[in-house]
Amino acid sequence: MERIRIGLIGAGTVGSGVIEILKKESIKYREKFGIELILSSVCTRTPEKIRKELQSFPSCKLESDYQKIVTDPEIDMILELVGGTDIADSIVKAALKNGKTVITANKALLSQKGDELFSLAREQNLEIGMEASVAGAIPVIRSIKSGLGSDSFLSLYGILNGTTNFILSKMELEHLDYSEALRIAQDLGFAEKDPTFDVEGIDTAHKISILGSLAFSEKIPLQSVQIEGITKISGLDIQFASELGYRIKLLGLVRKLSHKIEARVQPVMIPVKHPFANIMNEMNAVYYQTVYAGPGMFVGKGAGALPTASSVVSDVLYYGARRNKGILAENNLFPQATISEANGSLVRYYLRFTTVDLPGVLSEISKVLGDHGISISSVRQNEAEKEPVEVVVITHPATEENIKKSLKIIDQLSLIRHTSVAIRLEDKL
Amino acid sequence: MERIRIGLIGAGTVGSGVIEILKKESIKYREKFGIELILSSVCTRTPEKIRKELQSFPSCKLESDYQKIVTDPEIDMILELVGGTDIADSIVKAALKNGKTVITANKALLSQKGDELFSLAREQNLEIGMEASVAGAIPVIRSIKSGLGSDSFLSLYGILNGTTNFILSKMELEHLDYSEALRIAQDLGFAEKDPTFDVEGIDTAHKISILGSLAFSEKIPLQSVQIEGITKISGLDIQFASELGYRIKLLGLVRKLSHKIEARVQPVMIPVKHPFANIMNEMNAVYYQTVYAGPGMFVGKGAGALPTASSVVSDVLYYGARRNKGILAENNLFPQATISEANGSLVRYYLRFTTVDLPGVLSEISKVLGDHGISISSVRQNEAEKEPVEVVVITHPATEENIKKSLKIIDQLSLIRHTSVAIRLEDKL
Repeated sequence: MERIRIGLIGAGTVGSGVIEILKKESIKYREKFGIELILSSVCTRTPEKIRKELQSFPSCKLESDYQKIVTDPEIDMILELVGGTDIADSIVKAALKNGKTVITANKALLSQKGDELFSLAREQNLEIGMEASVAGAIPVIRSIKSGLGSDSFLSLYGILNGTTNFILSKMELEHLDYSEALRIAQDLGFAEKDPTFDVEGIDTAHKISILGSLAFSEKIPLQSVQIEGITKISGLDIQFASELGYRIKLLGLVRKLSHKIEARVQPVMIPVKHPFANIMNEMNAVYYQTVYAGPGMFVGKGAGALPTASSVVSDVLYYGARRNKGILAENNLFPQATISEANGSLVRYYLRFTTVDLPGVLSEISKVLGDHGISISSVRQNEAEKEPVEVVVITHPATEENIKKSLKIIDQLSLIRHTSVAIRLEDKL
Repeated sequence: MERIRIGLIGAGTVGSGVIEILKKESIKYREKFGIELILSSVCTRTPEKIRKELQSFPSCKLESDYQKIVTDPEIDMILELVGGTDIADSIVKAALKNGKTVITANKALLSQKGDELFSLAREQNLEIGMEASVAGAIPVIRSIKSGLGSDSFLSLYGILNGTTNFILSKMELEHLDYSEALRIAQDLGFAEKDPTFDVEGIDTAHKISILGSLAFSEKIPLQSVQIEGITKISGLDIQFASELGYRIKLLGLVRKLSHKIEARVQPVMIPVKHPFANIMNEMNAVYYQTVYAGPGMFVGKGAGALPTASSVVSDVLYYGARRNKGILAENNLFPQATISEANGSLVRYYLRFTTVDLPGVLSEISKVLGDHGISISSVRQNEAEKEPVEVVVITHPATEENIKKSLKIIDQLSLIRHTSVAIRLEDKL
């Protein structure tokens, strides 16, 4: 029987989930995989919360200093579940220096300090499991590395943040504006009091930089991801999208453009008939195109104690078996990607203009667009009882640069009442 | 550098795809995985078809007798891509007896003779890779075994046959009847001249017996799967489903009911808003519910030369590395599952009755249903210009046994013009 002795650091939501799964499933793992998972030590600042659960692990030590765990020669594997990038960084480094395999759910740490940690792991011939860091319960990282390992990715699109997907779903289904939907999400615990990290797209950027690097075997630094959140999306845009057969989703996307890589986080419109558009509420999904296997998609829960813990434990089993077999460490250190400029890709745009209701409006707008080489595919102007009037334009493929230049000019026209809105259409999925 | 010497037996659609991928990607695999894949021998009955491609492999031998390949001491791994269950069975057995790792895309062989082959593999401490046998390019088998290995499955539903999914999609989108859609599928090469194997659900049954056994770690024999195909589905049912907010899909499903397992292949109605319902045309998908991670879904191409070949090559890389590391064989030999009776699960039903247009019709029908404990949730009877009239009933949850008994009686009533139709609603996905 193989044995893996585990040191768990951090017993919050995910950590408690791991303890629960180990308690219920360890016997099954012994039978099914021939591997015994032993919870040797737990380090937490709130021991009272888990004391009852730990009664099922009589030999498990409870520590308040993580140093004792990472230096314990009896321990094979450290689960870093404290989050953040300061103490977590010290924990992972100390664990690796002491010869431990590391499992982490920490996307901020990996996307910001991954290279340093992967490099240290490689020196030590040790592995870092990170399945739980992106898309919670979906086994997407192992699928990219192994299941789709024979293939070459062309693009990867992710709905990777449950909070924003929940807000956008609520906005559409209950005809709410952004701030109302945010409040509901906060009341239900799907959004933090300060939701910046989620709604401004930063969380998605962390995750797409991790997934993109693995998919392309090229390092996509967090700073190279263009980020736009959902705070400017209005109920009106959601409604127009729906009328036009689209749905707005906050996507993280990475895409090969000849030898460069486009990396963005942005709200985009995708055709409502596409399965990817039907990932609603707090669910996550990854859609990909590859040379041989794709297109394809993985869907699942992106967060939550047990879903995320299930991925942590899956890593424990996988990397535990590899450790015991003396398998060489996976390489997660990649050469730097060449990132494409903002205006690299040509896509269609949804533009919304809030204007006075005058005969010349459309001709003024379309003249500015035409001057920038942007041609119009369709126009929609609903009958309005009073001003201002909403004019929606769908363009033919255009560069982001030209769209931005046009909108800057249009927004200075006297007939425009508010800042105009531009949302990319991803209709070639 | 690790080396894996490959003997490829069968160079049809998938085999040619494997040759193409090896030709284009071998250098990348050497760099990325530190593994060199060497195509040592190919056995085919139509060597003229691949002679040109093989020029890229100057040291590759072309054989007409598979015995020469399976006994060649230089070869590490046999790719069995001939299909069928006779010669394929002999090839796999001979390969295992001669110490070769086996990769196969052969679902018929695995679902019918898997136990014997897995048992032989275990004796020899060898592995059988089978990712390509179910859902072509989707890495679902590795995800069940590894990514979701820490979890326990409650249910698994598959759209696993591209032909039937294509036919059902065409019927809906182009308002065709079954026979018209079948003809289009045949013209486009999505259906065989004799489509029995696909349209009667046998192919799906093979695949769900394989996936179900892996998901539950219990053997689900092919003979224990209840099978119903799509040949009785009419354009009318597709249309009514659509009006009611459902879509008809041929599902393979396995589900835990206390300690028994329900295993079926059946056309069912699923809510059109569910992402699973939006898997159209020849695409495949697997939807699952587990204790910790689920629900979740994998989507991708179910067939085709390169998509299927990409899974074969993924297995070559995965099992090749394991072979060279001397990792113990995976266990695919499971205890026999206890299969639940047909009427184990209670589900809602869509019933369609073709009747004369008389006042007493509905009361007669509902009386028979009521006598069998089946209560009606909703009724729909569109205005008809002429007889017969279609009456659609959605029931509350009922057993299959009671539905069958009722329909037997109802179909003998004088007011019924055709055999009535019953389709299960899977609305708890």
